[in-house]
Amino acid sequence: MTRELLVEMVGRGVVTPTGLISQGRGEAYDYLMGERTIAPAEEAERTAAAHLLDARNPVICINGNAAALDAPGLIALAKAVPARIEVNLFHRTPERMEAVISHLESEGAGEVLGREPDERIPGLEHDRALCTREGIWSSDVILVPIEDGDRAEALVAMGKTVISIDLNPLSRTSRAASVPICDEISRATANMLRFVGELRGDGQSIIKAKESFSPAECRRRTVDAICDSLRAGFE
Amino acid sequence: MTRELLVEMVGRGVVTPTGLISQGRGEAYDYLMGERTIAPAEEAERTAAAHLLDARNPVICINGNAAALDAPGLIALAKAVPARIEVNLFHRTPERMEAVISHLESEGAGEVLGREPDERIPGLEHDRALCTREGIWSSDVILVPIEDGDRAEALVAMGKTVISIDLNPLSRTSRAASVPICDEISRATANMLRFVGELRGDGQSIIKAKESFSPAECRRRTVDAICDSLRAGFE
Repeated sequence: MTRELLVEMVGRGVVTPTGLISQGRGEAYDYLMGERTIAPAEEAERTAAAHLLDARNPVICINGNAAALDAPGLIALAKAVPARIEVNLFHRTPERMEAVISHLESEGAGEVLGREPDERIPGLEHDRALCTREGIWSSDVILVPIEDGDRAEALVAMGKTVISIDLNPLSRTSRAASVPICDEISRATANMLRFVGELRGDGQSIIKAKESFSPAECRRRTVDAICDSLRAGFE
Repeated sequence: MTRELLVEMVGRGVVTPTGLISQGRGEAYDYLMGERTIAPAEEAERTAAAHLLDARNPVICINGNAAALDAPGLIALAKAVPARIEVNLFHRTPERMEAVISHLESEGAGEVLGREPDERIPGLEHDRALCTREGIWSSDVILVPIEDGDRAEALVAMGKTVISIDLNPLSRTSRAASVPICDEISRATANMLRFVGELRGDGQSIIKAKESFSPAECRRRTVDAICDSLRAGFE
C-alpha cells in the first residue's frame, strides 16, 4: 500500500523516481528491525520530543518522501509542539516545491515555509543550501526526516540540535544527528506526538531525557537489534 | 550512475516504478556487505557455474530490473554456458515484454524466449505463471536474478535446481533457492562467467562443487558477514 502511494506521488510530482530507490533502502532496514519500533528508537523519540518542547524555534523540515509518507503525522506533530514547517528539497524545482507545499496544505498544514528562501545553509552548494531566515536558518532544534548526509552534517555544523529519522543506523545522517531516530516515519511521528503530550510542562523530565541520551549508544543498540533479528532468521 | 540508469529505464518501460523500490532494498544489503563479493557469495557463484555447466536445459530467466542492471553480463553468461534466455515479468504487459526483449536484443542477445508462452508454472496465478515449454517449463537448472519469492518457490516445487541472485539472505527467494547468491548482479554474473571458464570440462570439480555446497550454511555465513560489517561501523 505504501508502495502504491509513493508511485502515485511520483505521478503528482511530490516524490522523485530516485526517492523510490531511497524508500526501498529504508524498507530493507525496517524489515531487519521487524517493522516495529525497537527500544532504542523509542528512547530517541522521547528525547526528540523533549528537545522539541524545550526549543526556542523548533522547525520540522519536510522533503518529498516525508510529505508523501506521513504528511498527517508531521503536521500533527508540528501543531502539538508547536513547530514551524519548512519544505526543503534535494532536487529543487519551483514545480516540485509547489507540489510538496500544496500537498501539505491540502492535508491541513497551516503556514508552510520554503517558497521564498532568503538565506543559505553554509557549506552546501547550489539550490540545496536555500532556506528561510525565520525557519531552518534561525532554528535551534530541527527535525529532518529522511535527510541526506550532507545537509544533516551542515545543520549540525551550524550548531543546531538535529533530530533525524533514518532507518539506517550507519548512514551519514544518523551518524551526524544529535538524536538519530531509526524508525519508520509514521511510527516515529506517532510516538513523538505521544511523548510531547507526556512531557509537556514537566521540566525535570525534559531535562533528564535530554541529558541521559547518547546518540552513539542508541545507534549501537540499534545495530545489535538488527543482528539479533538477522540471526533469529535461522531459528 | 546505476540509479540514473534505472530511472532512464523506467522511462523506456523496461523497469516499473516499484522496481525502483526493489532496487533500493537491494542497495541496502549491498551496502551492509561492503559493496563487494563476500566469500559465501563467491562459493555460491562457483556452485552455480557447476550446475549451469552440468545441466541438460539451463535457462536464465530475466525480468525488467535484471535486464536494466546487467543485460551484458547475463547475455555473456548465457552464451558461455550455453543457456537459453527467457523473459518473465512480474508486471506483465505486451508493451513491457517487448521493451525488455528488445533491450536484450539490442545488447546482443540471440534468441530470447517469452514472447509466446505456451505453458504455465503450476501454483502461480494470472499472467505471472506464463512461460514457454522449451525454456523455463522444461529447464532443469534455472538462474533467477532478482526474483520474487512466490515464483522461486514454485520453480523449486517443480523439481528444478534454482539459482537465485538476491542481496537479502533472509528473503523468501534466498530461502527457497538451491543456490542462493547474495551479491550484486553484475559482480555475480562476472564471477559466474569466470567460474564457467575454470570448471568447463572438469567433471570432478563440477561434481565436488555441487555436492559440497549447503544453501543454509551459505546464508548463515552471509548473515554473519553483514553483522560483522554493521559492528565494524563503530570501530
